[in-house]
Parts: sequence; structure tokens; C-alpha cells
Amino acid sequence: MSAGQEHYTIGVDYGTLSGRAVVVRVSDGAELGSAVHAYEHAVVDATLPGTGEALRPEWALQVPEDYRQVLRIAVPAAVSAAGIDPADVVGIATDFTACTMVPTLADGTPLCEVPDLAGRPHAYVKLWKHHAAQPHADRINRLAEERGEAWLPRYGGLISSEWEFAKGLQMFEEDREVYDRMERWVEAADWIVWELCGAYVRNACSAGYKGILQDGAYPSTDFLEALAPGFGGFVADKVEHPICELGATAGRLTAEAAAWTGLPEGIAVAVGNVDAHVTAPAAQAVDPGQMVAIMGTSTCHVMSADVLREVPGMCGVVDGGIIAGRWGYEAGQSGVGDIFGWFVDNAVPASYAESAAAAGESVHEHLTRLAAQQAIGEHGLVALDWHSGNRSVLVDHELSGLVVGLTLATKPEDVYRALLEATAFGTRVIVETFRDSGVPVEEFVVAGGLQKNALLMQIYSDVTRLPLSVIDSDQGPALGSAIHAAVAAGSYPDVPTAAKAMGKVRKAVYVPDETRAQAYDRLFAEYRELHDHFGRGVTAMRRLKAIRREAVAGKESAR
Amino acid sequence: MSAGQEHYTIGVDYGTLSGRAVVVRVSDGAELGSAVHAYEHAVVDATLPGTGEALRPEWALQVPEDYRQVLRIAVPAAVSAAGIDPADVVGIATDFTACTMVPTLADGTPLCEVPDLAGRPHAYVKLWKHHAAQPHADRINRLAEERGEAWLPRYGGLISSEWEFAKGLQMFEEDREVYDRMERWVEAADWIVWELCGAYVRNACSAGYKGILQDGAYPSTDFLEALAPGFGGFVADKVEHPICELGATAGRLTAEAAAWTGLPEGIAVAVGNVDAHVTAPAAQAVDPGQMVAIMGTSTCHVMSADVLREVPGMCGVVDGGIIAGRWGYEAGQSGVGDIFGWFVDNAVPASYAESAAAAGESVHEHLTRLAAQQAIGEHGLVALDWHSGNRSVLVDHELSGLVVGLTLATKPEDVYRALLEATAFGTRVIVETFRDSGVPVEEFVVAGGLQKNALLMQIYSDVTRLPLSVIDSDQGPALGSAIHAAVAAGSYPDVPTAAKAMGKVRKAVYVPDETRAQAYDRLFAEYRELHDHFGRGVTAMRRLKAIRREAVAGKESAR
Repeated sequence: MSAGQEHYTIGVDYGTLSGRAVVVRVSDGAELGSAVHAYEHAVVDATLPGTGEALRPEWALQVPEDYRQVLRIAVPAAVSAAGIDPADVVGIATDFTACTMVPTLADGTPLCEVPDLAGRPHAYVKLWKHHAAQPHADRINRLAEERGEAWLPRYGGLISSEWEFAKGLQMFEEDREVYDRMERWVEAADWIVWELCGAYVRNACSAGYKGILQDGAYPSTDFLEALAPGFGGFVADKVEHPICELGATAGRLTAEAAAWTGLPEGIAVAVGNVDAHVTAPAAQAVDPGQMVAIMGTSTCHVMSADVLREVPGMCGVVDGGIIAGRWGYEAGQSGVGDIFGWFVDNAVPASYAESAAAAGESVHEHLTRLAAQQAIGEHGLVALDWHSGNRSVLVDHELSGLVVGLTLATKPEDVYRALLEATAFGTRVIVETFRDSGVPVEEFVVAGGLQKNALLMQIYSDVTRLPLSVIDSDQGPALGSAIHAAVAAGSYPDVPTAAKAMGKVRKAVYVPDETRAQAYDRLFAEYRELHDHFGRGVTAMRRLKAIRREAVAGKESAR
Repeated sequence: MSAGQEHYTIGVDYGTLSGRAVVVRVSDGAELGSAVHAYEHAVVDATLPGTGEALRPEWALQVPEDYRQVLRIAVPAAVSAAGIDPADVVGIATDFTACTMVPTLADGTPLCEVPDLAGRPHAYVKLWKHHAAQPHADRINRLAEERGEAWLPRYGGLISSEWEFAKGLQMFEEDREVYDRMERWVEAADWIVWELCGAYVRNACSAGYKGILQDGAYPSTDFLEALAPGFGGFVADKVEHPICELGATAGRLTAEAAAWTGLPEGIAVAVGNVDAHVTAPAAQAVDPGQMVAIMGTSTCHVMSADVLREVPGMCGVVDGGIIAGRWGYEAGQSGVGDIFGWFVDNAVPASYAESAAAAGESVHEHLTRLAAQQAIGEHGLVALDWHSGNRSVLVDHELSGLVVGLTLATKPEDVYRALLEATAFGTRVIVETFRDSGVPVEEFVVAGGLQKNALLMQIYSDVTRLPLSVIDSDQGPALGSAIHAAVAAGSYPDVPTAAKAMGKVRKAVYVPDETRAQAYDRLFAEYRELHDHFGRGVTAMRRLKAIRREAVAGKESAR
């Protein structure tokens, strides 16, 4: 790197439906160009590609070739949009949804690309929101609690059905042949790095949060064998692999990947990372008390701290899980923007679409504008935001959404606002749980697409009584990845230093109003009562999911 | 009446939105012609006619002139459609929604027609679904329970906010001047008869069910004075009036009413009646064990019995309340068809309206067809059908609707089916409560517009495990009124005899399937748990209504 010469890094953010590449200037974090490529197969949740086999409820798969296409299409497009010379790119880093798992051969070949396995659902990528392994997660949790496994409190007392072990156990029990053929059970975050540099390294973040790696050890062979006879070798045979800290160099760009991307062969490829966690440095939020919320289809909350505490129902606490050298805490809400999207797609009448079009607004904007005219509580509704289950603090994907207070006077904007508020109440439950566990939250830093909804942001600030800062980038994860790439390339000594130079945030854009906060307190009290009744008490929601599964199975068997 | 000469009666059914007149042949009940006239002002629930004054939530008024227009327009149109000679009409009878109350002067002039009172909301007709008197009903119930009033168990232990005393107390306390100017507090069922024959008689049905007339007495002056000082004279001054049994002659058609209707002056005008109760003879369902359900915007259940029992949460038991000489039981569901209608108007996206239009179906038919393809429980939902509160067995209009089990996979037809089922579960709660109180139900006889939904009918039969018969007339209440007119005119000795000749029913059109019934049992168990939790236990729904009222009031006061 010669003096005076500008250098660039590429951040690639793999989301649920598409991948985004961004070209970032190393000196100041300026985002010079970006491109998005939508996955051809999107989320595979209805029928398997090729065979057309119907998938059962709660399944969500992806196709790994869709991820490579992002490298081939979005990366060169971003470089071209930035108008830079690719020769000035010094590193690339990626981040991924998690826990998204790729079953592979020893050389990294995904099992669904092995010809005789292409028709097997379990050979595909299991996306984070594949929720069919809940019974397996339940068994893991029961057994871990019985045995008093030391790692369990590090995950708030509950392992999620979304994570490596529940999904792995489901495969072991439902398709033993595919399981036996699998040689590596790879986080997509690490698989894409393997594709780029030809080396498989597990990143400290997903290994810790999703892979139950704590104090250098995974769940024991004993534990796994007690869980399911024959499953004892899962860690040793398929999971265990060297770990690298975030910001480290995983390897160098291979000739093949250089050809895909148009980038120079041999540049630094950073260790993989998770989309949420990588965003914290992009928002300059790496200090204790700064909770970063990446608010999109779902919300992920990440926060660093100098102390180790066991927070009930948190997703996890991992040494170096966000920033090397600090304890990284994670919590989450399984459904946020996708609940609003589901509502708009499924529950808003034609007249609203017409009014929105006439006003030159999206339906979301239209509903938000109408909802913003209401006094707090005027709609008379409270909702539970569990349409995709509850990730924190209940960690139960068998939970479901609820709306109470409906009358014949209830309008679409009423329910829409109640859903916005429900997600804010869900955040407040998380913030209060952290506070009560000795990990106080002092600032709420928002990244992700929902930051553009000012009503939603103000509701969050009022409901949580926290100042709300907003990342000053539309592509936080990709910027965060570019920051990690700069560290991997040696441009900065560590991630916090790079974050200070390259990250972007607008501080305290929204501040709480005490009168509004008190009005929300009354609605929150109702939310909390419903939360505890349906989430901790009666299991009506679990029974309804069981009834639904049996009904679908009965219908299929009758065909 | 000369031998061989056919005679006719007119039945006029006053519904929530329109009045319907039917011309019926006395010899066999053949319906020869009918006409409907929609009320110009429909339901006044937003702003007062003329002044434009905004009404508070839960208010529902009507304009009495709209009722007279039915006599002027629908009656002659029905006679014309029937192609009969009006001279052959021997009687007319009417039935009305209840409890719908008209405040009048001593001559029957509605207060809203007194010029200086036309701008006062309390001078208007309070429609049955005016639900703003719940606090007043609550106080009546508390005091009656404290004092152990003997009439309270005759109403299932709870007086409804829809009835004469709650609505009267609201007027007394909210607009004392209008209350003081009121000389009669008249059921609309009796007011329209007064308009027809110039004589005010109270009918035994609404006086008993809505007016708390039991064993010949109303609530005492003592009770009323204890309820609100100064209210003690309510019964003596404004309510008390001679009672006539159903099917009796109230008087003779006046010259003025003859001119309105084109019918012969002096023909028999029957005593007023309530739309639900009058339907029982139209469906030939006047015997013990035959529960008639009039299923429209709401559902009213009526059944006669030879025994007097106190059924918890029933609407009432009245001597001669349906058929003179038998105990008439009433129960009800405040919202049924109007919940489905609300859903279609407010929660179904444009794509469904387009698919329905393409298939030549209404949106209701389209959703029903999609819902009918589902296995029981496949939607994973349970709803509470309390969007208009609960009339039986909880008798609480502060309750509200709820949907639980929502996921991102939930489709409009899923919620629609859950709402259909919720109303069936609500009916089952009523049927079981009657059975457990010693008034068993053996046959479920459906009248009203919802009978045309075969899926809904089969759900009701499966959920209740009862054979379901269907009235063989599209205009059951009007036919029932015509039967009463025939009795008033002397063509038959009593209503049961007239019902045998003129009523129409198709027996056991739907019968329960035990496999389906068992599948519904599981969903009903969930409904029952929600029912008891939200209906009897926590008062979240009441608190939400209070929050809503305060929010609206705060907004108004800020204007």
C-alpha cells in the first residue's frame, strides 16, 4: 500500500432473499458503489426445486448456487458502479444470515449438488428460519437441563431450533443416509469464505452463538449419545474445526474466485461473520451499553460488554462474539418487518391500496400515516408479535401471533399500529431482561430497513425510554464486512479502530417523551400479561401448532 | 271471511338496516310477494343527522321516520308484487330488532321529531347495538346482586347494556333534560304498532326479555332510587303500560296507516313482536328441545319449554315470551355475520376480490370455498367471536375479538374459517349451558341469511353434535309476523295451530359426523380456555376498551 494511494475493500452481505456487495473506501468508509442480486430460488418453503416435492410446514431451505451467483454478478456490478480500479481492492469480507447451515462433503461440496442427493430435502441449505426442528430443540433443552450442562445458561437457558445442533439432530433422525454422507456441517457464513479462499475456518461468532462452543468446548459425546444413540460423533465427525477470531484473515482470494468477482487473486479474505454482529462496528457501536438492533424482516440485537452475565432467554453470550476481547451478547425478535409485510400482503383491502396509490405512497407508508394520526391506545388493541415464534426471551418457535381487542370498528391501520407497537414491546421485554441481569442498555442504535419508518422509531424510543441513534448507512452489514476486510487486509490494527474511521451513525435522532412513554406503559402492561400467559403459562399456541401439523399430515396421508 | 275466498296477511320485519314486507296466504303460508326498503339513515354511529355532531364510540342510533317509510314503500310494493287485491288482506303484524328504544311524548311522537330536541343524541332511537350503556348495566348488575333481586336469575344473572333499563339510566345521567321531556320509553316493536293502530300496548315478549317484567312486576322504585337518586320514577312514569300476549290484536289499522300502506282501514293489527322470537313458529319450532337460531349479523337463539329453569348467562326466560303458555328462553351471540362482513370489508386483499370476481363468486363465497378445502385444525387458529361483545353466556359488551395462532403462513381463508368456527363454538357454549341447566337442546333449527353457507351449517352441526334443520323461507321473521297477523285476524285459534299450517322447515338437512366432531372437540377445548380466561378471568379486554375511550376523549378535548 503506497502512501497517498486510496484503497478499497468489498463487503458482501448475504440476506434472506438476496446478496448485496458494497465497495468501501478504506480511509473514511465512504460507500462508493453497490449492487444487489436476488437469489433465484429465494426461500424454498413450498416445493423442492427439480422434484417439486412438497415440503412440510415450517421448512425453509435455500440453494447454495444462488450464493455463488452473488459473487459473480453483484460484486463486479458494485465495482463497476463505484468506478474504481479493481486493482485497488485490498480485501473482501462477507457476512451471512445465521444460523443457516450447509451440509457438505469434505471438500465443501454441498450435498444438494451431489447428483444422487439432489432430490433429498435434507441435502439442501437449512435457512435460519427453518423451524421444523423444534421438537429436537425441545429434547436438547430438556436433556441439558436434566444434566445441568454448563453451556446452557450461556444461551439464556434455551437452545433454539434454528441452531446447528437442533437442525443436525433433525437430519440425523429424518434422513440418516443424507446425514451419513455429510462430512461437514458448515455455517453458510463459513461456506462462502471457503468458496472465496479455498480454506475452511469456523468464525468465532457463529461457532459460539449457533454452534454451542463455550470455553473451547462443544457439547460432549456423552450428551449427544444420550440425546440419540448414534449421534455421539456429531461434533467430532462433522462440526469441530479450527476457529478464527473476527477480523482475522481466513485466506487469500483463489484464482477461481478472482475470476468470478473480477477482483485481484490473492487479496485478503476475512473470516466469516454474521449479518447482525458485523453491523455493530458499522454503527460505531462497540462499547458496553450500546445495543444495536438490526431491524428488517426480523430484528437481531447485539451488544458488547466487559462482564459475563447470564441473561435469561438471551440468544447467547460469546467471548469475542462481536468484537475480539469483549463478551458479545445477542438477543432477537424472530418476526418484525416480515409481520408488517405479511399484514400488508394478506390483510389490507383493495380500497387501501387504491388510496395509497392515489397519494403516491406505498401501502406501508399509507398505513403508517393513518396510524400516526391516532392517540396512543385509541385502537384498543394489543398484539403479540410471535408470528414467527419468539426468539428472546422465551426462545420458543411454537409460539404464534395474537391480536386482542378487535371490534367491528377496527380498521387496518389499527391492527398495523398494534403490530408496530407489539414489536416495540417485544424489544422492551429484551431491554428490561438485560438490565435486570446486570447488562444495562443505555442507547438503542438502529440499523436495517425499518429505520426509515419514523413513527416506528419514535414508538421504540417512547416504549423503551431510550435515546435512539440511527446508523448513517443503508447497507450496514456490508459496510461492517468492509470494515472487517480492511482489518484482515492490515489497513487497521483492529476492528474498533477501523470502526472509528469507517463506521457512521447519527446520534439520538429520536428521544423519548415521558407523557407518551406513560401512555405506552399501560399497553405494555397488557402485552406483558399476554406474554407471560401465552409464553410461559398455558401452551395453547403449542397445542394449535400440533393440531395443525396433524391436520396437514392427515390430509397428506389421505391423498 | 267467506268460504272459498283466499285471505292474506302482511308480515313486516324491521331489521337493522332495512324493513321487509311479505304478503302471505293464510291457508298455507305461501309467500306471494315481498319488498325491502333500506333505511335512509341506516345505523347512525358516526355523526348525528342535521347537526353533524360526532357520536362517541359504541353509540348506535336510528331515525324513526325511516321506519314509517317501510310502511309507505315496502308494504304497497309487496302487495303489488304479490298481485293480490289489497281488499283480501285481513291483518298485519310487525316484528322488530330488540332492544331498540324510542323515547316519545305521551302521544307517541319521538323526541327527535320535537324541533328543539332534534340536535340531541339522546332524543333519537337507541338501536339494539348501542353499547355505550355498559357502565350503567354494570351498576344495575352489581346492585341487583347485592340486594338479591329475584328477577336477576331470570336473566342469567346479568342485565345487558342493550336493554331498557341500562339505556334509560344512561339517558337519565347524560341528558337530564331529554330524560325529563320523555313521557314514554317505548320499544320500537310497540312504537310501530302504535303508528299502525293508534294504540300503545306493550308486547309480552320485549317487556319480559328487555323490560325486566317478571311475575307481573318491574324492578322496584326502591331499587331504582338506590341506583341513582331521582331515577325511582322511571318505571311508573315512563315504562309501565298494559301488556298483551303475542298473537293478540293490538287494535285496528287507522285511516292514516291505511293510506300509507294501501291496506283496508280497520283490519287487525297484531301485538308487536321481536324479530327472533317471531321466527320460531315460521320454522314450526315451538316445542321444547327445538332451539331456533336466527343467524344474520348477530344470532338470536330462542326455545320454548314447559319448565322454568335459571340458565346462567341466558338473555332471559319469559312466561309467554315466544308462545303464550310456555316459558320462552332466549340466548344470543352479539356478532356473527357482521364479523364475517367486517373481515371481508377490512381484512381481505385485492387479489382475493379479483379471484372471486374471476370465478363469479362473492368474496364470502370465495373464502368459504377455499376454507372448505382445509382439514379441521389445519389453519392452526382459534378466534374469539366477541367483536361486538358477548351476549351469552358472559353478557359483557366490553369483551372483544381475538385471534390466536397467527403465523406468516396464515392466509385470509384461514382467519375466515377460524371466525366461522368461533361462532359455532360460541353456540356450543350456549347449548351446553342450557343442557347443564336442565333445558336440553335436541334439534338446532336455523333461520336467517347465513343458512345459505353450507360449510358454516355443517360446522355448526359437527361442533354441536346436533341435527340441523333449516327454515324453508328466506324471510322467516316476516313469515312469523304474518302467522301472528293471521291469529290476530281470527283465522287460527292460536299461534302453534297457525304455525303448523303456515310455517315451513326442512328437517335434519345437516347431521353431525363423529370424526369431524372429535376433531373440533380439540379446537373447542382451546376456545373454551380462551373464553374462560378472557371472559371470566383477566379483564384485559375491559381495560383495553377503557384505554381506548380515554384516548378518544383526550384527543377530542385537545381539539
